[in-house]
Amino acid sequence: MTNTHLTIPEGEAAPIPTGAPGVQLYPAPFEAVVGLLRQGIDTLAAAERFPRVAIPPVVPRALVERAGYVKAFPQLLGTVHSFTGTPAQWKELAPHAVEGGAWDSEQRASDLVLLPAACYPVYAGLAGKELAQPERFAVEGQCFRQEATSEPGRLRSFRMVELVTAGTEAHCLSWRADWLEAVAGWLRGMSLKVEVEVADDPFFGPTRRLFQAAQRAQELKYELRVPVADGLVQAIASANFHKDHFGEVFGFTSEGAPGNTACTAFGIERIVLALLHAHGPRPSQWPDSVIAAVTGGS
Amino acid sequence: MTNTHLTIPEGEAAPIPTGAPGVQLYPAPFEAVVGLLRQGIDTLAAAERFPRVAIPPVVPRALVERAGYVKAFPQLLGTVHSFTGTPAQWKELAPHAVEGGAWDSEQRASDLVLLPAACYPVYAGLAGKELAQPERFAVEGQCFRQEATSEPGRLRSFRMVELVTAGTEAHCLSWRADWLEAVAGWLRGMSLKVEVEVADDPFFGPTRRLFQAAQRAQELKYELRVPVADGLVQAIASANFHKDHFGEVFGFTSEGAPGNTACTAFGIERIVLALLHAHGPRPSQWPDSVIAAVTGGS
Repeated sequence: MTNTHLTIPEGEAAPIPTGAPGVQLYPAPFEAVVGLLRQGIDTLAAAERFPRVAIPPVVPRALVERAGYVKAFPQLLGTVHSFTGTPAQWKELAPHAVEGGAWDSEQRASDLVLLPAACYPVYAGLAGKELAQPERFAVEGQCFRQEATSEPGRLRSFRMVELVTAGTEAHCLSWRADWLEAVAGWLRGMSLKVEVEVADDPFFGPTRRLFQAAQRAQELKYELRVPVADGLVQAIASANFHKDHFGEVFGFTSEGAPGNTACTAFGIERIVLALLHAHGPRPSQWPDSVIAAVTGGS
Repeated sequence: MTNTHLTIPEGEAAPIPTGAPGVQLYPAPFEAVVGLLRQGIDTLAAAERFPRVAIPPVVPRALVERAGYVKAFPQLLGTVHSFTGTPAQWKELAPHAVEGGAWDSEQRASDLVLLPAACYPVYAGLAGKELAQPERFAVEGQCFRQEATSEPGRLRSFRMVELVTAGTEAHCLSWRADWLEAVAGWLRGMSLKVEVEVADDPFFGPTRRLFQAAQRAQELKYELRVPVADGLVQAIASANFHKDHFGEVFGFTSEGAPGNTACTAFGIERIVLALLHAHGPRPSQWPDSVIAAVTGGS
């Protein structure tokens, strides 16, 4: 609940199943490592000023529509629905409001969706601005993606920390290159086996191959892939360049042209799983050198 | 993003609107106060051992059905829906996947709902147990309630910290009484004007008055009500006794009978709003005595 101390509780950090694939509870030793990772990211980011913004797990539907997420990833988006009927209408459904019951026939889409990525709200906050200087933000949010498969680290609900910048294309490209190197170095310092790969996103629908090939060709997304379990390598962080997509859709500019954006994203649960896989299930027994590497030596 | 330091960033802590009522972003000074509150709750709780569990913002639908939340609060529950169709079906909806578009006709209810209260998953974790000793948990989660009205502190997405116990009726009643007094003292120590009131929950439907009167008569719920804005008093914390409801539905026992449970709940955003209302919008300028009171003198 708090990260105000570095003492790591005894015991195993393994997440606690909820019965729903990709949705877990997290015990104190796991959360202690999450706290160490936040410290490490702070240390990495200390040289740049990143105003912090905490992002809620639900955001306006209009925001993700405008960002283009619905078009690109309809199969991953979670929409928030609620009962908007009258007490009289509910009286008919109430007898079904038991475990496994069919009480949801009157649920209707609300104005909210689950947060698919932590950075969208800050791009929206730049609407109408001409960026004389690059903008920076550090965001954290609980993200949701309706993954079709389940495996360690293939979570539907997970925490994402992102460092974000907006400005010119030249700024965003050099910033992204610097951060890709910095994050790879940080992870390797934790004795994690890091592969850096040009990647694509799981676009949906008939045109997916086209999108994905184009994305790879432009090297928009670099993933840092690390073993999170035996024989299982996953992307635990990424460094992304969005060109002027968000400048176009949210209407902010740099040097008179639509603003470019880039972000470095940290998959918090996956990084913890990679550390548990590399250094053992009990963080309280990890070597001090590992703790120092995670926190950036602070 | 991290609460590893007590330094409070300069500037106003006011939440940042998202355009959706009751859903906000939070700047660094606000999050710094959240960190102080977590410290304060830790200090209050230090005398008892509360294993910590971090709760995700989505939980299994079956859990809240079994807990009885759907029956009691159908109008507040958010359900998670997703697209389960084929790429060919999506191809027909894709042209509507723009801002304000009608692309959601094929969204279907998933196995998940938004977390309505942070404590439910830990009661489920006690299923089948005979509690020889009282159990305790400290949980934090991002909760969701589809509130029909909007005002400062009337949030749809908010953080809840709960201290929870399970055991005999006598244990739960004395524990709840002790915590009600401790939390009221903590809040008054921050110079907040606290009214303690017997309350009821916003039950829905024809039988609501009956439920609410019964709940008040049994003094199941005490609310700690504090001004959060001019002329606006809200419950910022509560101390609750659930009798053997969760022992019955989740199947755990104490002394051979269905287990009783109690919890103390802290509405994190509302406590911050109350502090901002009492001490000003810039936490970096609050007196040291206020900071010390919030953190429990630590």
